[in-house]
Amino acid sequence: MKILLVGASGTLGRAIHQALSHHDVITAGRASGDLRVDITDSDSIARLFEKTGRLDAIVSAAGETHFGPLTETTAADFRIGLENKLLGQINLALTGQHYLNDGGSITLTSGIVGAHPIRHGSNTTTVNRALEGFAAAAALELARGQRINVVSPNVLQESMAAYAPYFPGFEAVPAARAALAYVRSVEGIANGQTLAVW
Amino acid sequence: MKILLVGASGTLGRAIHQALSHHDVITAGRASGDLRVDITDSDSIARLFEKTGRLDAIVSAAGETHFGPLTETTAADFRIGLENKLLGQINLALTGQHYLNDGGSITLTSGIVGAHPIRHGSNTTTVNRALEGFAAAAALELARGQRINVVSPNVLQESMAAYAPYFPGFEAVPAARAALAYVRSVEGIANGQTLAVW
Ligand SMILES: NC(=O)c1ccc[n+]([C@@H]2O[C@H](COP(=O)([O-])OP(=O)(O)OC[C@H]3O[C@@H](n4cnc5c(N)ncnc54)[C@H](OP(=O)(O)O)[C@@H]3O)[C@@H](O)[C@H]2O)c1
Ligand SMILES: NC(=O)c1ccc[n+]([C@@H]2O[C@H](COP(=O)([O-])OP(=O)(O)OC[C@H]3O[C@@H](n4cnc5c(N)ncnc54)[C@H](OP(=O)(O)O)[C@@H]3O)[C@@H](O)[C@H]2O)c1
Repeated sequence: MKILLVGASGTLGRAIHQALSHHDVITAGRASGDLRVDITDSDSIARLFEKTGRLDAIVSAAGETHFGPLTETTAADFRIGLENKLLGQINLALTGQHYLNDGGSITLTSGIVGAHPIRHGSNTTTVNRALEGFAAAAALELARGQRINVVSPNVLQESMAAYAPYFPGFEAVPAARAALAYVRSVEGIANGQTLAVW
Repeated sequence: MKILLVGASGTLGRAIHQALSHHDVITAGRASGDLRVDITDSDSIARLFEKTGRLDAIVSAAGETHFGPLTETTAADFRIGLENKLLGQINLALTGQHYLNDGGSITLTSGIVGAHPIRHGSNTTTVNRALEGFAAAAALELARGQRINVVSPNVLQESMAAYAPYFPGFEAVPAARAALAYVRSVEGIANGQTLAVW
């Protein structure tokens, strides 16, 4: 399959790239990858797909959210996650569907904070739940046998050096284990699902 | 209790106003109500709360989303629901928490399309799920005994003249029945919940 992987240089993305290495993978990121894209910029996404041409799968492991105490959070803080991880990934799906072959798939990334809120994580819970809702609804309307899923990894072992204080008692998973869920989404028949890895 | 009700002139808002009429209710809307506010505008929300002063409860029954076929939806379409029903209501909560008395409550509105996607409703499912996630996370971080819930009404009987084609087989509920859930949220102890009315 010809697969676009956005965020391929990241902690999660590198493991997904490895797990999909038996395919023809085109990598993309803001400052890394075969192609450059800023998912917060619609024109940049449009140019990306003009360069990739037709695809069999689109996989995203990109997207930032805001972390901070709710009592200090502003609408501007909140917009970070909405424009970046949420609308950025949704726009990859909305634009990408027109470049996706019949039966092709879209796989986006949420995370355990959607189902299990953490301190300072209200923006992330909101964004992750939104992505999971988007996939559930979009799966019912995609054309030409296309599918869409979201993978929701637990915190990654490889990220615990930085994230441990936010995830007390969370059972971190290896990125390689999270990456399997992307293979399941791309090569399997799941549709409209949230594939939790925890 | 002194309660701010945003969207009080709407189909749902009028019923909520009636159900809360034993309280001191301040109504607000873009073009109606005791006070004027555009929830998509942070400055307008800030001015609103300067006028209301301290409150015991904030209730929102306002917010638009985009309806349209997924295969024709753009990021700009999608931003409608994110800026209006989603960030608009979240901003009422983020700003409003600082005007809310100890033990006060915030009640926002999602809708059945969050849990049960409908044709052309991907933006609405996304926004409703996001709001429900926000309440779940925010409830764990609000200060001074404050609470937050989301009410998720089924389609209203009063709206079926306009919405029936989108809701085949949905068991529409009277707005007065949906309004009870707002009373439950304001006067009860529920926190972080989605109160479904269907
Ligand atoms: N790490 C975890 O423990 C964990 C757990 C659950 C869920 N997640 C989620 O998984 C996703 C990836 O996390 P990660 O830890 O792998 O992040 P990361 O190491 O920071 O990698 C992010 C990747 O996305 C790319 N990227 C960032 N912003 C972009 C933009 N605006 N446009 C295009 N590409 C962009 C980066 O490439 P450039 O630097 O070249 O732009 C990089 O390849 C995030 O959404 C995160 O919330 C992570
Ligand atoms: N009707 C249903 O069947 C149903 C079912 C489930 C959920 N819901 C949800 O419930 C909410 C209300 O629905 P509805 O049918 O009652 O809507 P509606 O009749 O159109 O009323 C909307 C209300 O919100 C106010 N409003 C709209 N935009 C605003 C803005 N930017 N800033 C401040 N106020 C604004 C309007 O006042 P002005 O005109 O003065 O601005 C009006 O009071 C929506 O979020 C809807 O998705 C509705």
